[in-house]
Amino acid sequence: MPELRKDPVIGRWVIISSERGKRPHDWAREPEQKRGGFCPFCPGNEDKTPPEVLAIRPDGSPPNTPGWILRVVPNKFPALQIEGDLNRRGEGIYDMMNGVGAHEVIIETTSHDLDLADLDEEQIYRVLWAFKERMLDLKNDKRFRYILAFKNHGQAAGASLEHSHSQLIAMPIVPKRVQEEIEGSRRYYDYKERCIFCDIVRQEILTEKRIVAEHDKYLVFEPFAPRFPFETWLLPKEHFSHFERMPEEEHRALAAALKEALVRINKTLDRPPYNFIIHSSPIQEADYPEYHWHIEIIPKLTKVAGFEWGSGFYINTTPPEDAARYLREVTL
Amino acid sequence: MPELRKDPVIGRWVIISSERGKRPHDWAREPEQKRGGFCPFCPGNEDKTPPEVLAIRPDGSPPNTPGWILRVVPNKFPALQIEGDLNRRGEGIYDMMNGVGAHEVIIETTSHDLDLADLDEEQIYRVLWAFKERMLDLKNDKRFRYILAFKNHGQAAGASLEHSHSQLIAMPIVPKRVQEEIEGSRRYYDYKERCIFCDIVRQEILTEKRIVAEHDKYLVFEPFAPRFPFETWLLPKEHFSHFERMPEEEHRALAAALKEALVRINKTLDRPPYNFIIHSSPIQEADYPEYHWHIEIIPKLTKVAGFEWGSGFYINTTPPEDAARYLREVTL
Repeated sequence: MPELRKDPVIGRWVIISSERGKRPHDWAREPEQKRGGFCPFCPGNEDKTPPEVLAIRPDGSPPNTPGWILRVVPNKFPALQIEGDLNRRGEGIYDMMNGVGAHEVIIETTSHDLDLADLDEEQIYRVLWAFKERMLDLKNDKRFRYILAFKNHGQAAGASLEHSHSQLIAMPIVPKRVQEEIEGSRRYYDYKERCIFCDIVRQEILTEKRIVAEHDKYLVFEPFAPRFPFETWLLPKEHFSHFERMPEEEHRALAAALKEALVRINKTLDRPPYNFIIHSSPIQEADYPEYHWHIEIIPKLTKVAGFEWGSGFYINTTPPEDAARYLREVTL
Repeated sequence: MPELRKDPVIGRWVIISSERGKRPHDWAREPEQKRGGFCPFCPGNEDKTPPEVLAIRPDGSPPNTPGWILRVVPNKFPALQIEGDLNRRGEGIYDMMNGVGAHEVIIETTSHDLDLADLDEEQIYRVLWAFKERMLDLKNDKRFRYILAFKNHGQAAGASLEHSHSQLIAMPIVPKRVQEEIEGSRRYYDYKERCIFCDIVRQEILTEKRIVAEHDKYLVFEPFAPRFPFETWLLPKEHFSHFERMPEEEHRALAAALKEALVRINKTLDRPPYNFIIHSSPIQEADYPEYHWHIEIIPKLTKVAGFEWGSGFYINTTPPEDAARYLREVTL
């Protein structure tokens, strides 16, 4: 059973995964992502993944056979385990609980060679719909407080398989970064009685210089104080605290905005590896007036890591105003 | 002039370095570290660095000539600039100030081929002494609130030159990670009236299982909730809030403990790239009873980055108890 452990000083929870316990020589060389080899996500190989928990099958084909156009399966090597109770406990000054959670994979397309940005808007909408459906279902498990939806694209960004996929992790804690954002938004709301993200949308539209693309319902822009070059945020213009609680037309509009953001990044930076993360509110909570869900896209361009991780101090050598201009100037 | 910008939601300051402004194609391929080429840190090339601000010259040789055994010089490509005032200002909801600071390089040895772990304890002590001397000098500049001392070793850990060196950045803000540690320690102190790091030292010595090496004055151990495999901490057993305010014998004892930690990591993980960061208290502050300076060493073993960065959620596949055992079992 993996264990969730809390740093006693700053309160950050981490997963210590003992089953996958790696020994020193396992770290000597990371395995290369297999190119052109066997792919468990391709049609015909449905029995090589755990049984699907959701699929779109226009032809009404039976589960775990070909005929799907999108498939959600449990991760074969999950970071957290679905069975068991939390068993919160302490050991002297330290706190821990069982690593209970769900870890699922969204197989975004049948095509081994297409990336998310290459899919049409309808298929990108289906991926977002699958995020929403799984979040609403996993919410019924009251052990889970947060669901992290994200994508690792490309080996350098942590993808271990090249077939385009994204992931969901349901967990019994709220990740530190999200907690900080909620607390920061709350401080602003207490002072101003406005959502800070709504204010960010207004100011960015006014100043224009960091905008990458403005849609009817969404704003794609470079944040004012980005940690990384070409870090790109995507916010709904209307206030919603929870990704999974928006009406269908918002998710359809998001598909178009997300596609444009990824295509512009791909054309500007020659299809870089990237991560995107949906920052949404804790699933069991009522709607927040102070917190606004959004997507953060981080192209993986630099190797440096430990220093920033260790210090919380970031040096970004591409100003966001420059990055926005490069991304805007691309011909679609 | 570089700019310090504050994230309006979570309050993290980042440096936006416009002079070094990188364009999209600059990111396509990071330059490889030159091996065997010209080295500005080797003896005889003193005129290829900015003039030294500190050196140890047993032969009394003049500055910026050979004869030194340790040398501190301003970084030729500084992240922050020494001249100018802070000019704190706002732009709507955003806050910023001029990127004022100092950025120095400690050239740790004359030998191009030795790493810090290969140096003898006396030379490692000189490096720590240089950290201390520069911190005490930079403290006189009241614009500076924090001095970050760190080492990037190996290209994958962000070192751009292979000749062994470490760095100091003096800055007008306290990095977010340090601020969080101080606040967390303060909460514990308010509740318990004890330093949490002193309690960590006591509990680790009692349970033994995460100890890598115990010295008379220092404890080297794997923390209870590490973000990264083989993340290693080094704490003075006696309570000191500021690295630079310890008596000389503490710095001498630290040299021995740091050498042992690095040698054990090198032998266990086949000389990995790594970062270490000195977490110390803000320089202008009086001694803190609640915060305890320490070193965090992070071997760079995994490629994954953006996901952890974006979520604040870490999955560590080597339990610290296993890592400690591997590190202990090495024959020195």
